[in-house]
Amino acid sequence: MTTALSESIEQLRARLTEHRRTGITIGLVPTMGSLHAGHVRLIEQAKQECGIVVTSIFVNPLQFDRDDDFKNYPRTLAEDIEVCKSSAVDIVFTPSVDEIYPSPQECTIKVGRLGTYLCGKYRPGHLNSVATVVMKLLQIVQPGRAYFGEKDAQQLAIIRYLVRDFLLPVTIVGVPTVREADGLALSSRNQLLSPTQRQTAIVLYKLLLYTQKKIATGMKEAKIVKELAMAQIPKDVAVRIEYLELVDPENMQPVELIAGPVLAAGAAWVGTTRLIDNVICNPIADTH
Amino acid sequence: MTTALSESIEQLRARLTEHRRTGITIGLVPTMGSLHAGHVRLIEQAKQECGIVVTSIFVNPLQFDRDDDFKNYPRTLAEDIEVCKSSAVDIVFTPSVDEIYPSPQECTIKVGRLGTYLCGKYRPGHLNSVATVVMKLLQIVQPGRAYFGEKDAQQLAIIRYLVRDFLLPVTIVGVPTVREADGLALSSRNQLLSPTQRQTAIVLYKLLLYTQKKIATGMKEAKIVKELAMAQIPKDVAVRIEYLELVDPENMQPVELIAGPVLAAGAAWVGTTRLIDNVICNPIADTH
Repeated sequence: MTTALSESIEQLRARLTEHRRTGITIGLVPTMGSLHAGHVRLIEQAKQECGIVVTSIFVNPLQFDRDDDFKNYPRTLAEDIEVCKSSAVDIVFTPSVDEIYPSPQECTIKVGRLGTYLCGKYRPGHLNSVATVVMKLLQIVQPGRAYFGEKDAQQLAIIRYLVRDFLLPVTIVGVPTVREADGLALSSRNQLLSPTQRQTAIVLYKLLLYTQKKIATGMKEAKIVKELAMAQIPKDVAVRIEYLELVDPENMQPVELIAGPVLAAGAAWVGTTRLIDNVICNPIADTH
Repeated sequence: MTTALSESIEQLRARLTEHRRTGITIGLVPTMGSLHAGHVRLIEQAKQECGIVVTSIFVNPLQFDRDDDFKNYPRTLAEDIEVCKSSAVDIVFTPSVDEIYPSPQECTIKVGRLGTYLCGKYRPGHLNSVATVVMKLLQIVQPGRAYFGEKDAQQLAIIRYLVRDFLLPVTIVGVPTVREADGLALSSRNQLLSPTQRQTAIVLYKLLLYTQKKIATGMKEAKIVKELAMAQIPKDVAVRIEYLELVDPENMQPVELIAGPVLAAGAAWVGTTRLIDNVICNPIADTH
């Protein structure tokens, strides 16, 4: 099957209805475009597990808390479609903003305490808007499975709760982060970095690895782990850490005493670009 | 086909999956039970328009802003099931609270300006909770058509926006209010009234009819219409009008100058029972 393009919800739904009748599993890979190897990994996993894969490309204006971030967000639609074709995506859905928001959104999704920490603290309204647009995409496509990257850990956790809370008949699949050779998590925003900024951007991941190591070697107090990690940041790099938090991997609430796996999640500003990353930290097993 | 009962989402979905494969239209009539002729009218219209009709009976604790209202809300499950059987409902869905809320609701629906006036002003959180539970019921049943009474005009308007905003593939059908011989709108809460209260409860509808008449005879300023109407209420009746508003029938926003059809909506307390009602008011056509 060749890759089909749909710009309209009506056309997409008509196409999917045909497939749905056959009982085939529909997979959805929602993206904001500017596709990289991390997205390709999502698509590949969807292709393995589903009969039909839809990749949506939609830069959702409502989830941007800063106008310049929305304006500067990388857009590479022609290349994205080529990536989808080489990855054997069945349908690429590229709706306009008017197609997704034909009128002002009167009803929205409100995220509770899950959205209180991490990015929720620094990007007001962002997570509600992500949950809202994902709900819309899930209603448009009605997939059996939907794929999200683990790099956006809080987003992934919220979408799992969204599906649980609204009893949506879809399985959410988290896919591991793809990294550059030096460990930098792939992100569409990486291409906004200058060569120098690209070098310094790795500081965030190193901070997370340091945290991971401290926890693996028995450190149990989150506050101390974070203080030690923050003290490791070289003074002369042009990176500002917005947050470094240790949270419960499921409900994203801060952990004080580390007794099981925790998620170390961080956000960093490199120039005007904001990057996020996370790693799972496993404490040493008690041997008594 | 006889009336089937389902208490679990899983069993209900299994039953519906069989029907869905045949391409039949599934109709949903969501209720809080204590069924009366108004509900029967919803069911009858659903039976006419759908191949399979599901009636849900679920008293949603989250939408009650007062504990005593939840506790005292009439519950007549055995009779309700009989009503469903006589109305040839295909499936009666009677989930427990744990079935609908197996865990605390982390993600909820937030209603915007549509929920600002009328009941939204007096029952904090109520409309968000209604929208949230309706979204859940729509996801559980995935009907092609869902039926709601026009008596709850603001609720109906919000559900129409909910469906529009989240692109849900369902048609919302509003069904006219059924009234007693004297005009009192049928409501499950009417059975909480004493015989004397039942007599005085009609004041609300009379107020709405007076408003309707004033508008039909050319009065255009909402403020004056409301003042005149309120002045009509006999001083000696034990009814407290919580609100009387003239709003746009679609978006439920207050109207100041009446230039087209408006909805006159009111809420009244009769003892500890709160009743609502509404009528559409058409101004006289300009003949210039």
